[in-house]
Amino acid sequence: MMIQRVTFIGAGNLATQLGKAFRQTGVEIVQVYSRTPESAGMLGTILKTAFTTKTEEIDLSADLVVVAVADDAIEQVLGKLDIRRNLVVHTAGSVSLDVLKKYSDRCGVFYPLQTFSRLREVDFSDIPICLEGCSAAIVTELKELAGRITKSVYEIDSAGRRTLHLAAVFACNFVNHLYYVSDRLLGEQGLPFDLLKPLIRETASKIMDMGPYDAQTGPARRNDEVAMASHLQLLKDQPDRSETYRLLTTRIVQAYKNKVNDIV
Amino acid sequence: MMIQRVTFIGAGNLATQLGKAFRQTGVEIVQVYSRTPESAGMLGTILKTAFTTKTEEIDLSADLVVVAVADDAIEQVLGKLDIRRNLVVHTAGSVSLDVLKKYSDRCGVFYPLQTFSRLREVDFSDIPICLEGCSAAIVTELKELAGRITKSVYEIDSAGRRTLHLAAVFACNFVNHLYYVSDRLLGEQGLPFDLLKPLIRETASKIMDMGPYDAQTGPARRNDEVAMASHLQLLKDQPDRSETYRLLTTRIVQAYKNKVNDIV
Repeated sequence: MMIQRVTFIGAGNLATQLGKAFRQTGVEIVQVYSRTPESAGMLGTILKTAFTTKTEEIDLSADLVVVAVADDAIEQVLGKLDIRRNLVVHTAGSVSLDVLKKYSDRCGVFYPLQTFSRLREVDFSDIPICLEGCSAAIVTELKELAGRITKSVYEIDSAGRRTLHLAAVFACNFVNHLYYVSDRLLGEQGLPFDLLKPLIRETASKIMDMGPYDAQTGPARRNDEVAMASHLQLLKDQPDRSETYRLLTTRIVQAYKNKVNDIV
Repeated sequence: MMIQRVTFIGAGNLATQLGKAFRQTGVEIVQVYSRTPESAGMLGTILKTAFTTKTEEIDLSADLVVVAVADDAIEQVLGKLDIRRNLVVHTAGSVSLDVLKKYSDRCGVFYPLQTFSRLREVDFSDIPICLEGCSAAIVTELKELAGRITKSVYEIDSAGRRTLHLAAVFACNFVNHLYYVSDRLLGEQGLPFDLLKPLIRETASKIMDMGPYDAQTGPARRNDEVAMASHLQLLKDQPDRSETYRLLTTRIVQAYKNKVNDIV
């Protein structure tokens, strides 16, 4: 059966962007549920569909129910629904498929590996969608659906997905936080963040070819103690940033210390 | 006087890429010096010019001497040269112009803000070059030279440059290290790093418009304790990665904890 009608439980960044991507390929969004009226209403408006804040009003007539809420809310909301016969997926990196098996016989995972913000348009076409299903038939159905919005579809089990999500936290969430620290450092001295943009672009771009181990540069890689001391001096009244600086510097020094005759 | 002939002291990544950029605009590279014969020879070959490993052989007939060595080596090499009358610049983010004043009356700083690797081609045209000079005339000369290889030329003093270099360490070197951790995490579980590439591209790209504070996503931003506990469980036998995870997670939670009614 081809999935044509989808209900969304959750109205955050991921639900917003995934809902838009589905809608663009002709999938009907039946309804949106969120705990908060603002989120439910906002996404209902964006997707031009019905919305509710009451679990008892959730429309389970859809071909697929997508549960896109925070990890700790998945079971809270599923516990209130009778979805034993529904095809249900969650979208969470770190939540096992087993969690859904308690509530539905027809369950799966539909995990788009990307950082989503509500107001930023994303092109789904190269976003990896990582699938898992409690039967081969469900995997086939989900693959067909995923294939409508991206060319990059993977079947990955719960253990693999959890690792992938953890790696994504390092490569995206933590990276973004470091962008934030650099933005603040410059802003506090009246320097424009624009100065760093070509560097940020190149840093992300060079690993696509070289891989991150060979791409590493900077004082820690070349063990330039004068430069590192100068930086720590600059941070001497900023204990949080000093701690972050020391920790990541130590890690980089360790990663290269056994590399003899390394010319950088 | 227009700078036409340049000698390079140092033959690392930055000297290599800057030398190539100069050469492409018709600047004559007079000579390359490096302590190590491999580096000197390699860059001499790349730039099709003479090279030496002896400080007493350094050709000071050039219009400009570029000192592109590790921070702690700048004074070591300058102490061996009689360059009082030469126009001399260093390329170091964290080293004050004052260091050069001891050795030359005509000194400056020529700091391209980018991550350079020897074997990766870079397009200099949008790389910010941050200049400083010990006179207005020298700043003018350096601006003219910088303007031949990039459209992005800034005059920034030593204090500003030091902050900029520190910010660059966060936004580039530390970021790259996090890419490395994510690469290893996946590799150890047999998952391809390619899965993360669209995420890495989008993470770098979205801050260009949104800025890093609004761009932040992930378990720490939404204080998703179930997801964070799951990640730490996965890292339970990896103390270094756990420490990095805890530290950066704490920072992100702190940065958003006072943001009320935040929908992410």
